[in-house]
Amino acid sequence: MQRCFDTDDTRRPLVLIVGGGFGGLSAAKRLKRAPVRIYLADQQNYHLFQPLLYQVATAALSPAEIAQPIRQILRGQRNLRVGMRQITGVDLDRRVVTFPGGEGRYDYLVLACGATHSYFGNEHWQRKAPGLKTIDDALEIRRRILLAFEAAEQEEDEAARRARLTFIVVGGGPTGVEMAGAIRQIAAEALPRDFHHISTHTTRVILLEAGPRLLPMMHPQSSQRAQRDLQAMDVEVRLDSRVTDVDTHGVMIGDERLAAGNVIWAAGVKAAPLAQTLGVPLDAAGRVPVAPDLSIPGYPQVFVIGDLAAVNDPDTAEPVPGLAPAAMQMGRFVADIISRETKAPNPAAAPARPAFRYRDKGRMATIGRARAVAEIAGRRFGGLLAWLLWSAVHVAFLVGFRNKLFVLLNWLWHHTFFASGARLITGAQQVPVKRLRNDLNGDDGV
Amino acid sequence: MQRCFDTDDTRRPLVLIVGGGFGGLSAAKRLKRAPVRIYLADQQNYHLFQPLLYQVATAALSPAEIAQPIRQILRGQRNLRVGMRQITGVDLDRRVVTFPGGEGRYDYLVLACGATHSYFGNEHWQRKAPGLKTIDDALEIRRRILLAFEAAEQEEDEAARRARLTFIVVGGGPTGVEMAGAIRQIAAEALPRDFHHISTHTTRVILLEAGPRLLPMMHPQSSQRAQRDLQAMDVEVRLDSRVTDVDTHGVMIGDERLAAGNVIWAAGVKAAPLAQTLGVPLDAAGRVPVAPDLSIPGYPQVFVIGDLAAVNDPDTAEPVPGLAPAAMQMGRFVADIISRETKAPNPAAAPARPAFRYRDKGRMATIGRARAVAEIAGRRFGGLLAWLLWSAVHVAFLVGFRNKLFVLLNWLWHHTFFASGARLITGAQQVPVKRLRNDLNGDDGV
Repeated sequence: MQRCFDTDDTRRPLVLIVGGGFGGLSAAKRLKRAPVRIYLADQQNYHLFQPLLYQVATAALSPAEIAQPIRQILRGQRNLRVGMRQITGVDLDRRVVTFPGGEGRYDYLVLACGATHSYFGNEHWQRKAPGLKTIDDALEIRRRILLAFEAAEQEEDEAARRARLTFIVVGGGPTGVEMAGAIRQIAAEALPRDFHHISTHTTRVILLEAGPRLLPMMHPQSSQRAQRDLQAMDVEVRLDSRVTDVDTHGVMIGDERLAAGNVIWAAGVKAAPLAQTLGVPLDAAGRVPVAPDLSIPGYPQVFVIGDLAAVNDPDTAEPVPGLAPAAMQMGRFVADIISRETKAPNPAAAPARPAFRYRDKGRMATIGRARAVAEIAGRRFGGLLAWLLWSAVHVAFLVGFRNKLFVLLNWLWHHTFFASGARLITGAQQVPVKRLRNDLNGDDGV
Repeated sequence: MQRCFDTDDTRRPLVLIVGGGFGGLSAAKRLKRAPVRIYLADQQNYHLFQPLLYQVATAALSPAEIAQPIRQILRGQRNLRVGMRQITGVDLDRRVVTFPGGEGRYDYLVLACGATHSYFGNEHWQRKAPGLKTIDDALEIRRRILLAFEAAEQEEDEAARRARLTFIVVGGGPTGVEMAGAIRQIAAEALPRDFHHISTHTTRVILLEAGPRLLPMMHPQSSQRAQRDLQAMDVEVRLDSRVTDVDTHGVMIGDERLAAGNVIWAAGVKAAPLAQTLGVPLDAAGRVPVAPDLSIPGYPQVFVIGDLAAVNDPDTAEPVPGLAPAAMQMGRFVADIISRETKAPNPAAAPARPAFRYRDKGRMATIGRARAVAEIAGRRFGGLLAWLLWSAVHVAFLVGFRNKLFVLLNWLWHHTFFASGARLITGAQQVPVKRLRNDLNGDDGV
């Protein structure tokens, strides 16, 4: 059955990669010709193109259009195996990982299992304000958004109906900006003609940011531009507004209550919990501070890449950002180190390791149709040009030609007909109504 | 807000349609110009193209490609409202339906809420052998199929691995035939190169039929052809095999045990439970025996159409089959009656009601690539021609140009590259393994 490893020589070093996101996948591919055996473990069977996940949550795309089975992506690589397996612990000193039902040794370990949302110690907010990291998250948010309009349509009570049609997005980073713009767009364009009792135009979308500006990782001019564009789409932007509580009626900002039936969390990220099993000091977000070569100090055979790693670029002394291009660069960087060292006739012959340098390809965030902000090579763009650039870059980096084609067609459809392609409410459901409008028998009731 | 009803004249008769499937949708559309107010209630927000649901269950299509929001389909119709609402009871004498939180009167009632799967009194089999009626069903079956291969890949125990790679499909009707062929095809074509420890070619697919032939609603020659085609694809077909028990280890056929990790139920249908609230006699499958005009005897303003109705064609004296074309014809038929009667100046002036006559457009079932059987206008086809015909008809009847385009592109992709488009495992999950293979550290274990 040994069809995949091109050698059964168990003396070849085993490179265990944990996580099939941008970082893990890039590392695996780059090791294609290295004299190693690779094992890539992920608890999902698919690689997810997270930058477009918000479009699944807002019913524009289907999950399968932004995800691809990891096995399928890597099927041509003969020195690699894939296991749908959750790694639950790492013992650095014994060079062993644990997983439900067993444990396994590694020669090199690449931790690339990313981040999840953080509620800053208020994890009980999660049920009321879901975050957006996985496909299941996105389908849950889609269900809530679409169900809110169905409930509003049947709601007789005026205050309850207003609450149903109020969406609060917490967090003014790229995900928050994109979610707020997309919800407002679906309410203003795709839905109005479909509802009878409610005017979906009146949907309130409130974007809350704890800091003084949106998109804090971009230039202040881009922040202003994004805010102006959102406001032009009737998104209410509130800066310096830190959420102090979330309940079923909305959120609290200090003493002020904002009533809303729908809260979406896009505020914080924290590193995957696997980092906590390492027994090394972590930073405030739970990330692993690594050496300039991305290894854990004292454990040169263990690398941490992507959102899980805390590292500064040696040139700018700035933290390397938690972006897909950074994760991919890190993945290739550690793969090259492993490649060189395993090809060297003996460990002493391997060249000294370089320091990881982040090449900043630019940053961008989309806001809505023909509205985006982008910063590339010191230049700042906005509006249609930035939006086209954003679209082109995202299609180009999608994995698989089929997904590129389907996303492109979906977008063409979406922007030509102002329609959403995936407006399905799936999963257990009931339309939650306070006082039922009896619209069967006229607006005056039975 | 009264944007949809083109009149608020509550003296216009209210036509309540329960169910947005083929029957309900056809009735609603046909009433577009009738002087009535229509209310269409469905517990889902979408119309589902059920004939292609098995392709969602076998990872070929995404849910959104075969479903469309009911509101969106009917948005242009000004005498109609849509409510995402479950109708839980009918009081025929009071002319009232009940739903959670209220009740409503109707002038005409069209019951079109279809059928669900039947376990013939063994409803506890459902968890072990899910059926295929809704999108959630299809995603659950997809999850189980894909997870079975992941589990087999990690399974060290030989018998447990063989069970993981054994799929039993219960029921030799069109759905069973299509599921069995599609599972065998994905195992033989899409998956082999993706797995290392298992040869997915060895996947066993067993199709069980209680009666003496497959596709009992078709000509015996078509049944034989379908059986030959399935066997050529290495599906094991067992006729005269009635399942007497289902448990986690497989199924029992009398005293014989068939070990299988995966059982899919395609054996029986029963009418939607709403029929039981009518207080009229039902047939063995829970359907409502109706008069030749499709009304409930004694209640001329209540029609039952589609899979929920039990009626014989007056010409052939054969039962009208539970097929999409029959439901659509029934929907248009009752809409025409309602239209005529509501346009008549007084009830006495309305013409006598005709009897429903089913125009048999033919029957078809697909088996696999370039394999199908079809019977049209007394002619029987098989092989490539039948398969192309099947494909063309199914694309043609899909609702919405976008869905037609996307399904067609998916199929082209699928059949050109022998790849599946939607191989995602979503929903809560863990890979269920009896004895874990430690493939991290070579096949010889740690």
